[in-house]
Amino acid sequence: MHPLATILNSSSVVTDPDGMAPYLSDWRGLAKGTAQAVVKPQTTEDVARVLQWASQTGTPVVPQGGNTGLSGGATPDRSGRAIVLSLERLNRILSIDPVGNTLVAQAGCILANVQQAAADVGRLFPVSLGSEGSCQIGGILATNAGGINVIRYGMTRDLVLGLEYVTAAGEIVRGPRKLHKNNTGYDLRHLLIGSEGSLAVITAAALKIVQPPPARISALAAVGTPDAALSLLRLIRETVGENILAFELMCGNEMNLVRARFPSQRYPFADNHPWYVFVEIGGERDEVVSERTEAALSHALDKSIVTDAVLATSEAQSKEIWHLRFAVSEANRLAGPTVSHDVSVATQDVPTLIANVSRRIADFPEALPLLVGHIGDGNIHVNILLPHQILTDQKNFRAISRQVNDMIYDIVGELDGSISAEHGIGRFKREAFSHRADPVELRLMTAIKHSFDPAGILNPGVMLSASQSLRP
Amino acid sequence: MHPLATILNSSSVVTDPDGMAPYLSDWRGLAKGTAQAVVKPQTTEDVARVLQWASQTGTPVVPQGGNTGLSGGATPDRSGRAIVLSLERLNRILSIDPVGNTLVAQAGCILANVQQAAADVGRLFPVSLGSEGSCQIGGILATNAGGINVIRYGMTRDLVLGLEYVTAAGEIVRGPRKLHKNNTGYDLRHLLIGSEGSLAVITAAALKIVQPPPARISALAAVGTPDAALSLLRLIRETVGENILAFELMCGNEMNLVRARFPSQRYPFADNHPWYVFVEIGGERDEVVSERTEAALSHALDKSIVTDAVLATSEAQSKEIWHLRFAVSEANRLAGPTVSHDVSVATQDVPTLIANVSRRIADFPEALPLLVGHIGDGNIHVNILLPHQILTDQKNFRAISRQVNDMIYDIVGELDGSISAEHGIGRFKREAFSHRADPVELRLMTAIKHSFDPAGILNPGVMLSASQSLRP
Repeated sequence: MHPLATILNSSSVVTDPDGMAPYLSDWRGLAKGTAQAVVKPQTTEDVARVLQWASQTGTPVVPQGGNTGLSGGATPDRSGRAIVLSLERLNRILSIDPVGNTLVAQAGCILANVQQAAADVGRLFPVSLGSEGSCQIGGILATNAGGINVIRYGMTRDLVLGLEYVTAAGEIVRGPRKLHKNNTGYDLRHLLIGSEGSLAVITAAALKIVQPPPARISALAAVGTPDAALSLLRLIRETVGENILAFELMCGNEMNLVRARFPSQRYPFADNHPWYVFVEIGGERDEVVSERTEAALSHALDKSIVTDAVLATSEAQSKEIWHLRFAVSEANRLAGPTVSHDVSVATQDVPTLIANVSRRIADFPEALPLLVGHIGDGNIHVNILLPHQILTDQKNFRAISRQVNDMIYDIVGELDGSISAEHGIGRFKREAFSHRADPVELRLMTAIKHSFDPAGILNPGVMLSASQSLRP
Repeated sequence: MHPLATILNSSSVVTDPDGMAPYLSDWRGLAKGTAQAVVKPQTTEDVARVLQWASQTGTPVVPQGGNTGLSGGATPDRSGRAIVLSLERLNRILSIDPVGNTLVAQAGCILANVQQAAADVGRLFPVSLGSEGSCQIGGILATNAGGINVIRYGMTRDLVLGLEYVTAAGEIVRGPRKLHKNNTGYDLRHLLIGSEGSLAVITAAALKIVQPPPARISALAAVGTPDAALSLLRLIRETVGENILAFELMCGNEMNLVRARFPSQRYPFADNHPWYVFVEIGGERDEVVSERTEAALSHALDKSIVTDAVLATSEAQSKEIWHLRFAVSEANRLAGPTVSHDVSVATQDVPTLIANVSRRIADFPEALPLLVGHIGDGNIHVNILLPHQILTDQKNFRAISRQVNDMIYDIVGELDGSISAEHGIGRFKREAFSHRADPVELRLMTAIKHSFDPAGILNPGVMLSASQSLRP
C-alpha cells in the first residue's frame, strides 16, 4: 500500500496502471511520464498532508487540473519518482456574490461549471477557452490562461481577487479573500498565478464576475493585409469604445484548410481573401450595437480598409462565423505535422512579425505558415505545417522543428516579443525560455523558486530547468 | 563633494540643507527624516550607477516620486545614512500607440502629464487621484495606487504591461515591453508593482490606455443605510452593466462637515440625509446614458432604496456634485485631529464593517467617525475625528490613536479584510502589518526581499521591519 493511502485514505490514492494512465500523458499525447501514485485529495487539509509527506520524503509533486495544457506542464517525468496531485475532487463553488461581483471556487472546479454558476445569477465569468468543458480553475490559474475575450476582460490573472494555497512544506495559507483592493505587502497572488505549480498549490480562488453586455454582435471582415486589420481595429475602437469583446485574425491558408476539412460549414463570401478578421462587439442595446458595427464596417469598406464584410444578423449566423474560427485546432490537427508557436509582440508590430515569418519560412521548402490569433492583443499563433512525408523520419522532423522554432523565436526576439503569450513554458519551452530570458530575471525567478520550494519538490523541471530550480 | 557627484555629475547630487528639505518629509509633514544627499539621475544608466555605488558602500536608498504618499514610504529615517533617489528628471513620455493602446512613460512623469498625453491622441489613462498634478508614475506603480475609477478600470497594476527597472546591485533589466500577453516565467512585474521601492527601482513602464466612454453622467443619491447603497449598486449594475465609472459612499457627518467648511458649495437636497452615494456612469450616447441612469434612480426611489436623488444635467452640475466628494480631504484636515484608515472588506461586508465601527467607537467619548470611500470596491476610508483638546497632550493623542487603530484593525480582521486597501504599508503601517499579516506570507515576503536585495539597501524599514528585511 502506498504510504499516502494511510495518511489520506485508500480511495484518494491510485497506484494501478490503468487508473493512473489518464494522468500520465497530456491530452495531445505529446508529453508522457510515469509516477509512483496519482493522489486525489478531497480537502485543503488533505493537500497539506500530501505536501508535508512529499517534503519530508523529497518526493516530486506534479499538480494537475483538467490536463488540457499545451506545454507539458502537468505531466511527470519518466523517472517514476513523482506523484501526480490531482485537484479534481476539490470541485465545489463555495460562494457567489452578485453585489460585490465575486465567485469563490475550489481549484478542481471545471471552468464551464464556474461560467454556468455565474450565469445562473445573471453574471459572466469571462475566461473562455476551447477546453472550457474540461479545464479546471486551478489549471487556468497556474497557467494564467488567455483565450478569446482577453481584449475586453484581460487574462485569467486579471480576474482573480484572492487565493487559498498550500506551500511546498504543507502550510495552508487560508483564504481566499474577496477583496477588490488590498495593498498589504508583495503581491503573492500574482506570483503564484502563472507559476505552473512550481511555487505552491492553489486550492481555491476568489474570482471577479461581471455583468454581461446586454447586446452582442459578430462580424467577419476580409482584409488585404495585417496592417489593414490593425486599421480596422482602430476604426472600430473609435466607433464602439471599449466594447470590442474579440478581435481575431486568420490567414487565407488557414481559412482554406478549414473549408477543405469542413466543406459543409458555410463560408459567407463569394471569393477567397488573403486575411480575415473575426469581430465580436458588445453593447447596451441590439439596435445601437448593430447600427454602430454596420457604420464602422461601411466606413472601413469606403476607405478600402476592408474588401468585404458580413454582419451576423442572427445568433445562428453568428455561430456560423465563429465555427470557422473554432475549427482551426481540429483542422490543423488533421492537416499533418505542425510546429506550433504562441507568440506575442506589441500590437503595432504584428504586421512586421508576420512579414518576417512569411519571408524567412522560404528557407523551409514546402512549409506552410498557418497564422491565426488574437491580433487585438498582439498574440499570434504561428503554426508551421510541414509536408507529410517528413513524419517518416522522426529524427529529421525533430531537427526541422528545432530550426523552425529557432527562426520564429529569433524573429520574436528582434521585436522584443514573448515566446509564450498565453500557453506558458511548461516542459516544452523550458529550454528556449532559459536561453532567451533576461539573465537577471532568470536569476531572480530562480531565487524566488528557492525561497518558496527549497527542496525543489514542486513540479521540478517545469518552467525553470532542474539545475536552475535546485539550490546550488 | 559627495562621491556620487563624481560618479554622476554635480548637478545631479544635492547636499545643501535647503535643497534637500522638500525631499526629507512627506507632504503632510507626518514623516520626517535626514539624508546624506538627494540624488536626481537623468538616465536609467545613472540610476544603475547610483545603485552600484550604494550596494558597494551599503548605503540605504530611498526611492522617491512626487512625494505625495500617505504611508511615509518615501521618507528616509533620521539616521542621515540614506540617500534619497528622486526619479523626477526621468520625466519623458517615450511612446504612444493608439492602435495597440499603449503609452510608455519614464518613472518621473507626472500622472497628469500622462493623462494629458493620452487625451491628446483621443485616449484615457484611467488612474485618477487627488494628487494627480504632482504624483509620478514611479510612485503610483510603487504603491499600486487606487483612486476613484477602480470599480471600472482596476488598480494601477491592472494598467501596466511591462517595466524597465534597476536591481539593488545596479543591473538594468531593459524594457518596458508593450506586451498585452506574456506568460514567460513568474510575473516579476506584479511583484515590483506595490513593493514600495523595496525590491528594485522602476525606471519606466508600458501602460495601457483605453478609449474613453463617449458619454458620462453623474448623480448624487441619498440613502438610509449602507445596505441601501449596495442595493443601489446592484440595481444600477443590472441597468447599465459594466459602465459604472465611480460609486462612492459618504456618511452624513462627513457631508455636514464639508458643507460647514465650504458653505458656498451648492448642496442639492432640501434635507439632511444619513448617507450619500456619488455615482458616475459612462456609456455610448448621452441620451441613452441619462435615460438609463434616470430609470435606475426612479426605480430605486419607487422601491424606497433611495430617499432622494439628483441627476446632473450639465457638466457644471456634475462638477458641483463631485466638489462635495473631493472637498473631503481638505475638510477633514481643517476639522481637527483625525486618525485615518484605508481599509477594505468584501463588498457585501461593508455594512457590517460600518455597523461595527459605529458601535465600538462609543468607547471613545466625543470621537466622530467620518466614513467615505469606494464602496463599490469594498474600500472605506474610516477617519475618526477626535476632540480638539486632545492635541494639548501629544502623548495622550498617540495613545488614543493606537487604541483607535487597534479597534479598527480588529474589526477588519474579524471580517477577513485588509488594513491597507490602496495607500500601502510604508512606515506608518509596518508594525500593524507585521502583527496582522499571515505569518507564512510574511516569511515568503521576507525571503523575496532577501532574494532581490541581499544587502538590504532598498528602502529599509519600509513595508517589512528591519529585522525581517535583513538576512538573519
